[in-house]
Amino acid sequence: MNIDYNSNQSVKMTMCMCENIFDTKDILSYGDSDRRLVFVDKLFYQCGDWKNKINDYFNNNNIEATIVQVECKEKTKDLESLMFILGHMERFNLLRRSEPVIAIGGGVLMDMVGFASSIFRRGVPYIKVPTTLLGMIDAGLGAKTSINHFDRRNRLGSYFPAILTCIDRQFLKTLPTKEITVAIGELIKIAVIKNAHLFHMFEIDLDPLIKSKFNCKCSSYIIKTAITSMMEELEPNLWEKDLERVVDFGHTFSPIPEMKSLLDNNVPSLHHGEAVALDVLLSSKIAVGRGLLTVEDYNKILNVTKRSGLQVCHPYFKDPYILWDSLLDATRHRNGNQNLPVPIKIGASTFLQDVTIEEIKRVTKW
Amino acid sequence: MNIDYNSNQSVKMTMCMCENIFDTKDILSYGDSDRRLVFVDKLFYQCGDWKNKINDYFNNNNIEATIVQVECKEKTKDLESLMFILGHMERFNLLRRSEPVIAIGGGVLMDMVGFASSIFRRGVPYIKVPTTLLGMIDAGLGAKTSINHFDRRNRLGSYFPAILTCIDRQFLKTLPTKEITVAIGELIKIAVIKNAHLFHMFEIDLDPLIKSKFNCKCSSYIIKTAITSMMEELEPNLWEKDLERVVDFGHTFSPIPEMKSLLDNNVPSLHHGEAVALDVLLSSKIAVGRGLLTVEDYNKILNVTKRSGLQVCHPYFKDPYILWDSLLDATRHRNGNQNLPVPIKIGASTFLQDVTIEEIKRVTKW
Repeated sequence: MNIDYNSNQSVKMTMCMCENIFDTKDILSYGDSDRRLVFVDKLFYQCGDWKNKINDYFNNNNIEATIVQVECKEKTKDLESLMFILGHMERFNLLRRSEPVIAIGGGVLMDMVGFASSIFRRGVPYIKVPTTLLGMIDAGLGAKTSINHFDRRNRLGSYFPAILTCIDRQFLKTLPTKEITVAIGELIKIAVIKNAHLFHMFEIDLDPLIKSKFNCKCSSYIIKTAITSMMEELEPNLWEKDLERVVDFGHTFSPIPEMKSLLDNNVPSLHHGEAVALDVLLSSKIAVGRGLLTVEDYNKILNVTKRSGLQVCHPYFKDPYILWDSLLDATRHRNGNQNLPVPIKIGASTFLQDVTIEEIKRVTKW
Repeated sequence: MNIDYNSNQSVKMTMCMCENIFDTKDILSYGDSDRRLVFVDKLFYQCGDWKNKINDYFNNNNIEATIVQVECKEKTKDLESLMFILGHMERFNLLRRSEPVIAIGGGVLMDMVGFASSIFRRGVPYIKVPTTLLGMIDAGLGAKTSINHFDRRNRLGSYFPAILTCIDRQFLKTLPTKEITVAIGELIKIAVIKNAHLFHMFEIDLDPLIKSKFNCKCSSYIIKTAITSMMEELEPNLWEKDLERVVDFGHTFSPIPEMKSLLDNNVPSLHHGEAVALDVLLSSKIAVGRGLLTVEDYNKILNVTKRSGLQVCHPYFKDPYILWDSLLDATRHRNGNQNLPVPIKIGASTFLQDVTIEEIKRVTKW
C-alpha cells in the first residue's frame, strides 16, 4: 500500500539595487539581533579602504560584527575552506533564523558561504554582497551553492538562495581590470543566448564600460538588464527540475578545462569567465557548422569577445578529448541528455542532443 | 530599489507499506537505469541471510548493483563516513535523476546517505529502506538528513526527503531486542504528545509487540498509526518554517547527554531512543511540577517506559548543568525560544518558554 505525502516550500529572494551601500541600512534590513557574523573575501578586504569602511559600517549601526577573512581562490574553494566557515558559525553560536550571515566578496566566497549556510543546523539565512562583476550578474543570483571536490568544479553543493542580494557598482571601482574582463564572459553568454538588445547595447558601450569599470552612465542599465535576463530563467526553475536550461550556455565544455588548467603548469590557468567565453565560442561554432547560426553572427560574438580582452583560444579548447570528457560529465549532470544550448541567432537558442566527438574534432580544427 | 523574486518547490514523498519487500519490485519502481548504487548498514548486511537476499534481489531483477557496506554507529556518523559515501557516488558516475541511490539500514545510514544525496551534484534522488524500528517510525520519515559534527548531534545536514520509503516489518525479526527497545522511546514520544489512542493500544499490546519483535498481529496497525501521527506533523512543516514542533518532544534535553555519553567511559552510553525516553520523562516531570499534567498520567508514562525495558534514570539526567546546556543549545536551534513541548495529558501538549535552571534543579532532585 502506497501513501503519498506532498509538501510545498516557497522562497523569496530580494534583489536590492543600491548605491553606496555603506551609507544605507540595506544589509541590516533582515534579522533583529545586534550581532552579525560577516565573511569577507581576504583579498578584497585588504584592498583600498574597504576594511575601515566595513568596520565603521557595523560600528556606526551598533552591530557587534565578527568579521572573518576567507582565502577565496578557485583552488581554495574546497572542503577545508567550507569547514573553516562552518567552524566560525559554530563558535559564533549562531541563532537559527534572526542573525543572517553576511558574505561580502566574489563568487567563490558566496558559493562557499551559501553552502555552509545551507548545511549548518540544516540551514541558516544569509545575505550576499557581491564585490565583483561576476558576483553581481551571475554567482550572486539564483540558489546554487557549492565547493569543488573530486577535482570537479562545484561537485558538492545545494540549492539555497540568499534572502537578500545587494548590488552596488561602487565595489567595481577598486576591482582589477582582469576581474571585469572575465565577468564579461558571463555577460556575453546571457546576451547571446537570450537578449539581443543587451548584446547590442553592450557592443556599443563596451569601451566606456571597461574604462570606467562599469561605473559609467550606461552600466547601471546594462547590469540591471543582465540580472533581469538571468532571473527570468532562474526564478521558475530554481531547483533545476527542468534540465534544459539556456543559462547552461557556456557551461558544457568549460568545467573540466577550467579545473584542469588550475592544476597544469603547462597551460594558462583559466578563470571561470574565461572558460565560459571559450565555451560560448565553441558552442556557437558548432551551431555555425550545422547551419543554425550565420557566420556573420558568429563573427559579432567573436569580435565582442576579443574587444573585451578575453582570450579566444586555449590549448584545452583545441583538444577534442578533454572537451568530450567535459560534455560527457555535463550529460550525466543533465541526466543522460546533452541539452547543449547553442544560439540560432543572437538572442535566441535551441538545444542539441547529438553532438559527437567527430563533430568536436571538426570544429576544433576549424 | 528592491526587486522580489518568488520560487516554489513541491516535493512528493511516497510511503510504501509492504510485506516481504524482496518479493516485490517496490524498491525499483523509480528510475529507469539498469544499475543501482546501494548503501547497506554493515552490521545488518552481515547478519542472517540478508546479504544473499539483497544480492539475489538485484540479480533476479537484472539490475547491476554496486553494494557498499557502511559502518553505521552514532560515533561514525561523521564527516569521514559522509565523504566515503560521496566518494562512491563519484566513482559510480551516478546519473543525476534516473538512478536513485538506495539506503538499506537504520537511522544513522539513512541520515548519512540522505545528506550525501542532497549535496552530490546539488541533489540526486534516493530511496530509504529502514531495517530498524527506529528507522521505520522516525528516521525514515520526513526530510531531515545529517551527520554529527563539532561534538554536536546532527549539527550539519539538510532537508532532503527520499522519493520513496519502504516499510517492511520482516527486517525486525533479525533485529537485536535492544534495537526494538530503544525505538520504543520514539514511539512513546509521539503517542504521549499527540495520540492517546496509540498510547493505550501500545500499553495493552506491549508484551506481544516486544516478544514478536513487532511481527505480531497488532504491530502493523501500531506502526502505521505511529507513522501517520508523525507525518501529520511533518508534512505541513517539512522545512521547519514553524519552530514550535510537538515532535521535538523528547529532543530538548537529550542531544547533549546523548553525544556526551558516547565519549565518557564513566557513564552508560545512551542510544538515541534511550536519551529521548529520558527526556520524555524529564519534560513530563516539569509539566507535573507546574500542575499541567497529573501525577497519574505521569505514572502511566513512567510504567510503560519501564515495561518496555528502557532506562528511566541516567547520571546525566540528574545533572542540571548538562541539561541546561542542552536546553540552551535547543533554544538557539529554535531561534532564541525554548519552545519546549510538554504533555498536558496523554495525547495533548503545550509549549513552555520560561524554564529556568532552578526549575531543572528542583525536578532532577525529585
